[in-house]
Amino acid sequence: MDKLLFTPGPLTTSITVKKAMLSDVGSRDYEFIEKVNYVRNELLFLAGVSKQDGYESIIMQGSGSFGIESVISSVLSNDANILIIINGAYGERISDMGKVHNIKQTRMVFPEHECPDLSKLEDVLKSNPYITHMAVVHCETTTGIVNSIEEIGLLAKKYDKTYIVDAMSSFGAIPIHMAECNIHYLISSSNKCIEGVPGFSFVIANRCKLEESEGNARTLVLNLHAQWKGMERDGQFRFTPPTHAILAFEQALKELEIEGGISGRAHRYKENHQRLIKGMRDIGFAEYLAPEKQSYIITSFVYPKHPRFNFKEFYNRLNHKGLVIYPGKVSHSDCFRIGNIGRIFQEDIDKLLRNIKETLQEMEILVGSENGVVAW
Amino acid sequence: MDKLLFTPGPLTTSITVKKAMLSDVGSRDYEFIEKVNYVRNELLFLAGVSKQDGYESIIMQGSGSFGIESVISSVLSNDANILIIINGAYGERISDMGKVHNIKQTRMVFPEHECPDLSKLEDVLKSNPYITHMAVVHCETTTGIVNSIEEIGLLAKKYDKTYIVDAMSSFGAIPIHMAECNIHYLISSSNKCIEGVPGFSFVIANRCKLEESEGNARTLVLNLHAQWKGMERDGQFRFTPPTHAILAFEQALKELEIEGGISGRAHRYKENHQRLIKGMRDIGFAEYLAPEKQSYIITSFVYPKHPRFNFKEFYNRLNHKGLVIYPGKVSHSDCFRIGNIGRIFQEDIDKLLRNIKETLQEMEILVGSENGVVAW
Repeated sequence: MDKLLFTPGPLTTSITVKKAMLSDVGSRDYEFIEKVNYVRNELLFLAGVSKQDGYESIIMQGSGSFGIESVISSVLSNDANILIIINGAYGERISDMGKVHNIKQTRMVFPEHECPDLSKLEDVLKSNPYITHMAVVHCETTTGIVNSIEEIGLLAKKYDKTYIVDAMSSFGAIPIHMAECNIHYLISSSNKCIEGVPGFSFVIANRCKLEESEGNARTLVLNLHAQWKGMERDGQFRFTPPTHAILAFEQALKELEIEGGISGRAHRYKENHQRLIKGMRDIGFAEYLAPEKQSYIITSFVYPKHPRFNFKEFYNRLNHKGLVIYPGKVSHSDCFRIGNIGRIFQEDIDKLLRNIKETLQEMEILVGSENGVVAW
Repeated sequence: MDKLLFTPGPLTTSITVKKAMLSDVGSRDYEFIEKVNYVRNELLFLAGVSKQDGYESIIMQGSGSFGIESVISSVLSNDANILIIINGAYGERISDMGKVHNIKQTRMVFPEHECPDLSKLEDVLKSNPYITHMAVVHCETTTGIVNSIEEIGLLAKKYDKTYIVDAMSSFGAIPIHMAECNIHYLISSSNKCIEGVPGFSFVIANRCKLEESEGNARTLVLNLHAQWKGMERDGQFRFTPPTHAILAFEQALKELEIEGGISGRAHRYKENHQRLIKGMRDIGFAEYLAPEKQSYIITSFVYPKHPRFNFKEFYNRLNHKGLVIYPGKVSHSDCFRIGNIGRIFQEDIDKLLRNIKETLQEMEILVGSENGVVAW
């Protein structure tokens, strides 16, 4: 029996998604090529766009960060300057990628518990006309905060910037309409809210921008334009694709559709999240973020101020009960994280909550909760 | 029922390897970390070396080419000059990677049907002392030729060069002793002769060389030194690993051991290959390479000179019978390729041969083969 994963991905997937991997297919065989085409079209559909609208989808081998670096290293010319909006570790990672490729960048760093200040952002855009690109993370897994990609997109449009969105943790769970948000490049991965297994990332791109980017790539394998052109030529990957992960993803897309698409999935995740928050508050935990900034994807909880609370022990005890939570990543506060994405239902959240209570009792932290009164 | 894959990988894997993927594991969970450690140690063992000997193994997300570019873009400084020995498309690919990263290179190009000329190679090494690194492909999948990595390694040692071997198609099937061959970096991937599924590559590296390379990386995600240091720190990947592909690989390594390790697997592949060659010759086909240069991994066959032979039709007809062969890649000759690696046994080779005969008869190419005499 697998452990239940309350992590930001890899996450718990359905058995039917995993069983789709019980097959070996030729990576250049027409049957596989058809599946790749289906996946690419479906990704455009989920982003609210199509080829006819001028958008393309590209699959990139490796994890989500490979997709991000593929975009950062492929689409900016040497004259470009990218404004990176940062309020967490994944924004910082984009900045690190810019640095390693010697791409000029303008950093706007906000506290991890705060959304980007749009008026400050507009000031920077107004006074720095040399900025050509903007990048932001939609849902920062660092904390679970959701950044307003719509409003940032309005500024991108107003100031005519190429707009890159890291939608790793949100795509498939939070509705995104690429064209309405003025997004030119959106990146996500196979093992997040589409509920596939890890193995690749994908980029949804505005075709005009993609065409303009030709010749800018700084690597061979992460060359986004060449990857796209290769797929367009004969439907094949330039380099060996993770065939099994793609078979799993095809099945995951079908199951997403059965669940009612992104809105159906959002509904389940929201219910999971509300139940989690309520239960955790009942036990005595507090969230790191203010509720209005909190996504329904992953939540950071502050370490309880109890002398016997030791996260490692807490984590290990839950793990032995078959429940995997996630350490924190917030810079200036001790937190741990619980994800409620993946093939996770309300009864799984209830199971987690019961086990968290039990664990705290074992650790002699929670001494009783009679009549709803929790004693720490 | 899956098609049988006579391809260079992804290839046919055992059902037990695929079933190992029916499990979701946390990428930062200690149980997964133990499996990663097992895999890394086993890879060193298969290369005939160990940590005690001063070698390290590093797993890199993505396909085999991601592993190659990880090495090329991470280990050479801006002052370095790499001699690339080329007799096929994969040698050319290493050269392309050098170019995209502005790494100085010296190209030695040999015909695709010939092994590198060692005396010419020595002349180049003698007269070009600025060369710091050397790279060669062990088994060129382009043709199926095997290059003598041992003899080239002796020259690498004599002239004190850092020696990089692309052992993509050979590792796990042809015995390689890294230290005896003076190899500093060896690269292969999950979906070749270890018989796992695609999803990652791996690098086995000389630790001194790896340590010296710190600071040379030109990317974030393909940074080999950082990937190694990350794994050494806590056993975890810096970026999401393909957990399911790693579970499959762990099982594949166990099945390799059961088969008698590399020598056991080599025995099966050699038998497969001999049966294939004999059967194809009996039908009237000829190999592209001279027998002494031919690997027992993959074989290029020359298109028969018959007016009704059309490779696409031949391929499609075999495909409909559930047998996937591979198009050719040789530059100056019309060939197709048949791999005999993966979970393929003599009866599968026999099945392929029967179906090739049948297909040629359907195409009215093979009109009869009475008394062993084939009429084209």
